[in-house]
Amino acid sequence: MALQSGDNEKPISFGYNSMSWKPKSGSNWTLLGLRLLAALAAAAATLVMALNKETKTFVVATIGTTPVNLTLTAKFQHTPAFVFFVIANTMASFHNLVMIIVDFLGTKFEHKGHLRYLIPAILDMLNVALVSGGANAAAFMAEVGKNGNSHARWDKICDKFDKFCDHGAGALIASFVALALMLIISVISILKLRANSKN
Amino acid sequence: MALQSGDNEKPISFGYNSMSWKPKSGSNWTLLGLRLLAALAAAAATLVMALNKETKTFVVATIGTTPVNLTLTAKFQHTPAFVFFVIANTMASFHNLVMIIVDFLGTKFEHKGHLRYLIPAILDMLNVALVSGGANAAAFMAEVGKNGNSHARWDKICDKFDKFCDHGAGALIASFVALALMLIISVISILKLRANSKN
Repeated sequence: MALQSGDNEKPISFGYNSMSWKPKSGSNWTLLGLRLLAALAAAAATLVMALNKETKTFVVATIGTTPVNLTLTAKFQHTPAFVFFVIANTMASFHNLVMIIVDFLGTKFEHKGHLRYLIPAILDMLNVALVSGGANAAAFMAEVGKNGNSHARWDKICDKFDKFCDHGAGALIASFVALALMLIISVISILKLRANSKN
Repeated sequence: MALQSGDNEKPISFGYNSMSWKPKSGSNWTLLGLRLLAALAAAAATLVMALNKETKTFVVATIGTTPVNLTLTAKFQHTPAFVFFVIANTMASFHNLVMIIVDFLGTKFEHKGHLRYLIPAILDMLNVALVSGGANAAAFMAEVGKNGNSHARWDKICDKFDKFCDHGAGALIASFVALALMLIISVISILKLRANSKN
């Protein structure tokens, strides 16, 4: 038969007006590079947040001339949103590393071509949800830490724990970079699935 | 020519081992039903949160026998995370309604078949990111409202504004239902794209 819907990987032109995503193995490098950047950004977000800790000593009273000190520590573990942030970014980093490894081993799974592009497209979408949830939850919690909430009578803490807040801001920026990269990666995964289903 | 990569919509079998998603127009009803449910859940989350307001009067002091009252109002607008929650759920609701309408008008755009399944797959993925961000940000903020955060000296407010918190919890449940539906819808969109690219 001349007409087979097998998994042969030759380049295909999609006809008029169609987007020109070419399923060549060479074009993989863009995606792999983006995945590496996303993995690094998510790993940076995880590390900066997980190592974020600041201890400060405050003078709360004076008895005679002896100051009474209070030592307080700000840790990411004290805030559930930051714990979720660390978990989400860790998982996103691992996901991208695993996808890179699977891609390099990909030639061994060529015959499973019908799942080779479907599974990354679905997993990338799930990871976008995870990173978005973690980054947004932490960002809005950080906003309360920075500005407080006068209605709820929650005082800001960034005036006392400035280093903790600076590091937290760094972790948030890294995580939103990872989220932006994951959005691009997810779109590319969907485009690749579409291009490679056209056999 | 017998071999054309046109947009004819006849059912296709994908060969051995492949998942049996059939691109029949009848199978659209599942997706449309899920989209309607997601739109309703997101709209419910928006409405319950946007109408959430509780006013309470507290006795803060007594001068002689005259109580000094303080009237406080808890509103969703006081918390940026809840504002984002309302925006995210409104957009998710609109997105699903627009997708339903476009699907019913779909026969007019048959000739644009190569974008007909691509655009929903990408937009659904972006909406998943949006709803996930909104729902998670609000959920972690609600957790502080419910339990407080002793380390940051943020007192819980749900002991004073119990109705506000109950309504907020309802909105959160609706939003997480919408998120779960959006995840399923996004997977189905990706499967449909894959099935319909196989022409």
